[in-house]
Parts: sequence; C-alpha cells; structure tokens
Amino acid sequence: MVYITRKESFSAAHRLSRPDWSEEKNREVFGKCSNPNWHGHNYVLWVTVKGNVSSETGFVANLSDVSNVIKQYIIDKVDHKNLDLDVDFMKGKKSSTEVFAVEIWNQIEEPLRKLGCNLHCVKIQETEKNIVEYFGKN
Amino acid sequence: MVYITRKESFSAAHRLSRPDWSEEKNREVFGKCSNPNWHGHNYVLWVTVKGNVSSETGFVANLSDVSNVIKQYIIDKVDHKNLDLDVDFMKGKKSSTEVFAVEIWNQIEEPLRKLGCNLHCVKIQETEKNIVEYFGKN
Amino acid sequence: MVYITRKESFSAAHRLSRPDWSEEKNREVFGKCSNPNWHGHNYVLWVTVKGNVSSETGFVANLSDVSNVIKQYIIDKVDHKNLDLDVDFMKGKKSSTEVFAVEIWNQIEEPLRKLGCNLHCVKIQETEKNIVEYFGKN
Amino acid sequence: MVYITRKESFSAAHRLSRPDWSEEKNREVFGKCSNPNWHGHNYVLWVTVKGNVSSETGFVANLSDVSNVIKQYIIDKVDHKNLDLDVDFMKGKKSSTEVFAVEIWNQIEEPLRKLGCNLHCVKIQETEKNIVEYFGKN
Amino acid sequence: MVYITRKESFSAAHRLSRPDWSEEKNREVFGKCSNPNWHGHNYVLWVTVKGNVSSETGFVANLSDVSNVIKQYIIDKVDHKNLDLDVDFMKGKKSSTEVFAVEIWNQIEEPLRKLGCNLHCVKIQETEKNIVEYFGKN
Amino acid sequence: MVYITRKESFSAAHRLSRPDWSEEKNREVFGKCSNPNWHGHNYVLWVTVKGNVSSETGFVANLSDVSNVIKQYIIDKVDHKNLDLDVDFMKGKKSSTEVFAVEIWNQIEEPLRKLGCNLHCVKIQETEKNIVEYFGKN
Repeated sequence: MVYITRKESFSAAHRLSRPDWSEEKNREVFGKCSNPNWHGHNYVLWVTVKGNVSSETGFVANLSDVSNVIKQYIIDKVDHKNLDLDVDFMKGKKSSTEVFAVEIWNQIEEPLRKLGCNLHCVKIQETEKNIVEYFGKN
Repeated sequence: MVYITRKESFSAAHRLSRPDWSEEKNREVFGKCSNPNWHGHNYVLWVTVKGNVSSETGFVANLSDVSNVIKQYIIDKVDHKNLDLDVDFMKGKKSSTEVFAVEIWNQIEEPLRKLGCNLHCVKIQETEKNIVEYFGKN
Repeated sequence: MVYITRKESFSAAHRLSRPDWSEEKNREVFGKCSNPNWHGHNYVLWVTVKGNVSSETGFVANLSDVSNVIKQYIIDKVDHKNLDLDVDFMKGKKSSTEVFAVEIWNQIEEPLRKLGCNLHCVKIQETEKNIVEYFGKN
Repeated sequence: MVYITRKESFSAAHRLSRPDWSEEKNREVFGKCSNPNWHGHNYVLWVTVKGNVSSETGFVANLSDVSNVIKQYIIDKVDHKNLDLDVDFMKGKKSSTEVFAVEIWNQIEEPLRKLGCNLHCVKIQETEKNIVEYFGKN
Repeated sequence: MVYITRKESFSAAHRLSRPDWSEEKNREVFGKCSNPNWHGHNYVLWVTVKGNVSSETGFVANLSDVSNVIKQYIIDKVDHKNLDLDVDFMKGKKSSTEVFAVEIWNQIEEPLRKLGCNLHCVKIQETEKNIVEYFGKN
Repeated sequence: MVYITRKESFSAAHRLSRPDWSEEKNREVFGKCSNPNWHGHNYVLWVTVKGNVSSETGFVANLSDVSNVIKQYIIDKVDHKNLDLDVDFMKGKKSSTEVFAVEIWNQIEEPLRKLGCNLHCVKIQETEKNIVEYFGKN
C-alpha cells in the first residue's frame, strides 16, 4: 500500500455568515471572516489516494489522471469564483474549510474510484496558518 | 546604506473589470479575474526601507515600528476586505496588483518618513506565480 | 471526523546538555547543540485537533480560539525566551524537540478540551531538516 | 511514542519507460516522463522514525545518526546520478516515485533498526505537485 | 515604472562537462555535476518585465500573455527534456545556469517586446541553494 | 554581467541590548529581543556575487568555491553559536541583523575577491518577516 498525493491550488472569494443571524452575531462568531463584501484566499488543495503499485507501470495511479479529475470536478468550478455564489456543490452549504473539504471529498471520491484509486485524504490550506484534513466517514 | 524588509500578509477579495465595458469585453481582457461575483487571494506584502545604521541601536529602523505603520495604514484596511468596495485608498482605482502597489506606496511613504525611514520598495505577491514591485516615481 | 491545524511560530534559545556530564561527553552525544553559550531556532509549531463539524457554524472549532490557547499557554511563554532558563513548563526537562513536543501537549490538551476540541497532534519543526510529532499517550 | 523526521534532498535524472514497449506506447502511458534523453528533479526525502524518548538524552534517536544512515545508504548513491543507470538498488526497477519510495525503505529499514529506530514513513516529493508516502508492508 | 514578475517551473536533465576534457578534468572542475549519465533539477524561472501602468487596464502587461511567451519559447522546449541534447537554443552551449539564463533572455526578449514589455530580469533557481540572475547586456 | 547567489543557513542565539542602558531602557527600545537569557533564530544567508561568464567553464564562479568561503569564514563561526559571546568578528558589535550583514560582508569580500568574484549583496533573513540586505559602501 502506497500513498500518492497531488497538490493543486486556486483562488476564490467567500464569506462566513448565517443569513438567520444578525450582522452583530455573525461578526461575534465568525469575526472578520463575516465581512459582508467578501474576502478571499489562495487555497492549496492536496488530494491523497492509496493503492497497490502496479507491476506494469510502477504507479498506484497516473498522477496526471488524478490531476485531471481534480481539475474537472473541483478547480474548474472554484478557481476565481465565489464559493458561496458560484459553486454548484457548495450551494446552501457553509463555506468553512471543514465543510469545503468534506464536499470536495464527495465530489471526487467516485471519479477517482473509476480510475482504480481509493481516496485517502482531502487536505486544504486556507491560509498558511489554517489547514483542514478529511479522511472520509470511517 | 542598508536595506531592511518587513513581510506581512492579508486575505482579500477583488475583481478586475471596467464598468464601462461589457461582460464580454471584461472577460476578454481580464479573463477569469473579471468574475462578477469576485474572487480573492492571500496577498503577501514586503515593504523595504533603506537608511544608515544607527550607532546607538544598530538599526536602520525598528522593524516593529515599520510593522506598525504597515498594519495601521494597510493591513487593518485591506485584510478580510473587498479591495474594490471596502478600501478607502482604492476607491475609484483598478485593483490590479500594479495599481495596488503604487497606492500602498502612497499610503505609507509619509508615515515611514516620520520614522526616519526612506521607503525603497513595495512588493506584492498576488499568487505564487504573480509578483509586482514598485520603487517610487524616480 | 475532521482534523484542523493551526500553525504558529516563535524564536527561542536553548542548549542540549546534562549537568552531570562533562563538556566532552556532552559534545560527544549532543554535538554542536551542546554549545555552553546557547544557540537558537525559529521554531514552527502545528497543533492539530479533531472533532465533528458543527452544523451551526461549520467549524470543528474556531481556529482563533485554538490560536488563543496556543498563544496563552505556549507562545507567550517561549517566544524570544531561553527554553532551559525562562520557561516554567520546561524546568528540569531536557529541551530536545521530542521532550518539548510532549510538554507542549501536556500544557494545551486540557485548555483545548474546554473548547470542545480533542488534541490530535503536536508537530514542531526545529530546523527545516528536523521535525518531531507527538500524538499523545495512546 | 514520538515520531521524528529528517529531511534531505538530492538531484537526479531518470526516465519512465518500458523497454518492451514502443516509444508511442511509452509516450501514451508515461507522457513527457518517457523522454528518451531523460529529465530530472530536485527530490526531497523525508524519513520518519518512531520510538520512545530516552530519559538519558531526550531523543528518540540522534537525528545526526539518522541523517548519516540516509546519506550513506541513499544520498551518496542517488545525488547527481541517473536513477535508471547509476543506482545499484534501482537496477531493473521502474524509477516511478512509488517504486523508489519502497526501495529506499528497503535500503534503510535495517540500518535504522541498528540505531534502535523503527522506520515509520518514507516520503518523497518529486515535484512540488507530486508526493509519495510509504509506511511499509503492514 | 512598475516591475511585474511571472514564476514558472520545469524539470530537466543536464550535465556539466567539456568533451575536450578528460573525465578526470571534468570531475575536478565540475564535480558531481559532470556525471556522464546526467542528473537533473526542478528549475524555477522568474521573468521580470518593467513598464508604465496602462490607465486602460491597470496592467504593465497582461501576465497571462507574459506566461504564454515563457511557455511557448521556453517551457515547452525544456520541460522534461535534456538541456544538452534536446533544446535547440542550448545546442553547443554549456548548460551552466549562468549560460542558461543568458540564452533564455535571448529567446524571450523580442517576443516580450512585441507585447509592449521591456524584459528586466531572468532569474533561475537550479536548486534551493543556487540562484542566477541576468539583467541583460547593459 | 551575471549575478549568482548561494544560500546557506545556520542557527544561533543572540540578544539585543546595551550594557550602558538599564533593563527597562533595553526593553523599551529592543522589546522582547532584549531578553537577558538570550533567544535565537534559524538565520538564512544569501551571498550574491557578480561577474562575467567564463567561456571555459560557463561559470561566473564555481558556487562550491563560494560555498566553501561562506562556510569557512561565516557558518563555521556562527552555526550553533551565540553571536554576542562566541563570534570573533562580532565582538563589541551589536548583533542586529543590519550590523551582522555589514560584518559578514567585511569577512567574505576579500576571500571572494581571491576567487575572482565581486561581492554584490549579503542578504540575511532573521525570521520569515525580517530581512536585511547590504550592498557594500558604494
């Protein structure tokens, strides 16, 4: 069992807030992340898959295939977009990095499985100081 | 003459577009940076000042004073904000990194001079691949 | 279960040595780290906590609360200090990165639990080449 | 149980190809990595060992000993070399990062055990975007 | 006058040697870089252009145009290639980073000028420890 | 004229203070850097030399020779040392990064000249946020 990781990055706007809360309550809980006019980040995304090494190719999976899945299902939808307004799989969801990581997992788990890959970890760096990892339900 | 540099960072949303242009024209010139719902970055800012080394302190300037100027005049105004909507010194200006660097220079040159510092360079990294430097009018 | 990580950094002096050993013995075992007049590092500290994602906030925990715990219990005590002379929770302990990681765990486990967080990992980078991770007793 | 990691780096040439495949087939499967005249990378290698903290030294293991093992068994053999032509332990093996990580594990597991260390992970970064981790057979 | 920089990266093999020198002499002068079976690097390339800020766009130049020039004239020719065997503009030249920087300058100066840009600096990082900068003939 | 840069790093302890000032005055001017029991950093040092490219070797200078000068004259004297107590060329000098950069220039300018190199810049990163550059007297 070997683990391989592909790193991609993208830039997006978002805001943390609940429409059922007042500005004051949002500011209290979400701090400066609740700015009504949005803010944004250069997100870094690491996707790790695991599997056996193919004796034919020496690969667990072709990382350019993994990259293509990440680009098609995630990067093309989120890069230079607003996570709260423009992204289909985030509609009605909070754009916290935690929720975002889980939703990215849900988008790519199946397409990666079709490549013969088992998704192991979705890791997102929102800022250099804030990182989230999700390893699936189990 | 010695050069000292302070690095700070902040996260902000922005958009490149001209209101007098159509969406198509904006898309053609500014590409994905023209997304109407904004996008954002983790900006990195390096401010370089130059001067003689004080025999009393061994400093060109106290970098914590330099940092305070950057925080008061720039970071507090742009961090977790929308450069096009929330920032007084960017009102009516394009939020390209080039224009942003010039406007940051204009904000901090005088306050740094009051510290006895000569501003030498404002450098901004918008993404890891895109960097802008401004050395003033001369 | 989602894992969230906060990165902080600080600068400190320390020395590896045993008072019951001769300078020669200390030099033999601890090498240049035994320099009697100290040396120092820019330490990087990653604290990872795990938990369920709150449906109210989308957070496992508010990373600014996690950051406050790290600052109050660790950074304020170690930044620009001597680990062997100035730090209460390192008194009488060796300032190896391994021991330091365990002691940091012991300092923050309880305060983080009061935030509703389960501490998962304390990771310290002493130099770019040397990294230590501690995941608790179990 | 504490985990300690040593980071080393080296520069090497290699090529992904099967001699029993045509150039076209190699190009199709391995893409630009199949270039007949080789290409190369600045590889980064992290070796993680785990163990109890010695009450005598505060160490799981002396990282300079760990570094010496990595240098003797790996770096001296691969740095500024061709992985496919010059490296004894890669002879007849594919130089995919996956296979390379497993073979590095096989080279250093025993020498590290003689230091009293249990090898936990071999991690290789081939490019900033491609990373492989191997945790051994179990 | 504002300076804008685009960062790109590529992986290539090369060797430092003179065919008119013996292996011993090559080894003496070029050290491990003279390995006959090649070695390689993940090169990082920064291209800096300077100019006035357009009042129409806020740009010195569109960095995606600059990136396209770098890709067409440099990256497509050197990425996953052998600098000594595969690259037209390096034929008969030494593949030292110094010479490489000058030759890259010669390739892109004119195409960048057609974009309305004045090339200011070609900077190459061969390894994290070795960096070369070329600012043109004047 | 081409510029080549060698990056080295080292870890050291130091303190900013004047013996003719009270603890209070030192604390007021130098802040936490005046801690009487020292603190320390992982310093990063970039040394840039400039010159013409040799047609014989393709080098401005052999970077391993440059590295040897830096190691002999600087790294061996400062690594894992106390800048204020252990370093001959810092005796009686303030260990601010500004003064340190000037003194490093003074140590290596002549030895580099003997290699046929003209020293162009000494750059020191004390922490990721604080950087100093010195380009000599002219």
